[in-house]
Amino acid sequence: MYIKKKLDERLSIEQVEESTSFAPKFDQNGLIPVVTTDFKSGEVLMQGFMNIDSLLMTIELGEAVYYSRSRKQIWHKGKTSGLVQKIKEIRIDDDQDCVWLRVEVEGGASCHVGYRSCFYRSVPFGKSSNTSEKIELKFEEKEKVFDPKDVYGDAPNPTKL
Amino acid sequence: MYIKKKLDERLSIEQVEESTSFAPKFDQNGLIPVVTTDFKSGEVLMQGFMNIDSLLMTIELGEAVYYSRSRKQIWHKGKTSGLVQKIKEIRIDDDQDCVWLRVEVEGGASCHVGYRSCFYRSVPFGKSSNTSEKIELKFEEKEKVFDPKDVYGDAPNPTKL
Repeated sequence: MYIKKKLDERLSIEQVEESTSFAPKFDQNGLIPVVTTDFKSGEVLMQGFMNIDSLLMTIELGEAVYYSRSRKQIWHKGKTSGLVQKIKEIRIDDDQDCVWLRVEVEGGASCHVGYRSCFYRSVPFGKSSNTSEKIELKFEEKEKVFDPKDVYGDAPNPTKL
Repeated sequence: MYIKKKLDERLSIEQVEESTSFAPKFDQNGLIPVVTTDFKSGEVLMQGFMNIDSLLMTIELGEAVYYSRSRKQIWHKGKTSGLVQKIKEIRIDDDQDCVWLRVEVEGGASCHVGYRSCFYRSVPFGKSSNTSEKIELKFEEKEKVFDPKDVYGDAPNPTKL
């Protein structure tokens, strides 16, 4: 198993935080959270998860491969939609329990709903949130980049209630 | 309880994805992942978690309040270090199971190790990862912004092995 060879064991805080040792931490489900931003705009496109296999596939391919918790399988982003995420940089955080991908997206969209970013709505805060008991989201992207029906057809929506 | 009033129940995919209804989803531990970026540079500063109380505190205060999984308590970022994160924008993603904070940090640093961003190291990928069986991280930030000992004193390091 070449996979085991490439990752170090976590032996000390100094090793994990202050060295060049690559020793990522996976949670009790074997997953590590991933933040994906657009290389040019810096915009957060999505937040997902990887297991050890999808992390190593991402590193080898130079394209983002996630683990889909709803489908319970490896998910090579863009294989269905064409919206492949080309890796420009991979970063790991201090305690190595989170990955940051900087990507370029073919087609310019990353969200299954059809928007450029998954984060197309904002939440009012501070004084603007105090005027009523109900928080109303605000759409920050006004138009969809693509029609999900054209791209995904009748594939089930991944959103879970 | 004013808290319950402010969040909507999740009743349909259309409501969650396509409306202004604020109906965030918390996982089995009552947490929602949070991505925090620097408002000016777009750099990812950290990835953390919120519970319902810290999310609502963030919205009301206009400062980032997380839930610390290692300390098992609400964590008003910067209360110890002075590195408060002033909220400039809060976004929520398509299925409302992830929050994106855009912040300005007093003092310019966000990482308990002393760097500006928690993501101060990169992971080689593609051809550069294939030359050996071992992956070596690369430091992208060369110097610490502050000395953790000056800021945190003898407080225990939050990193878990």
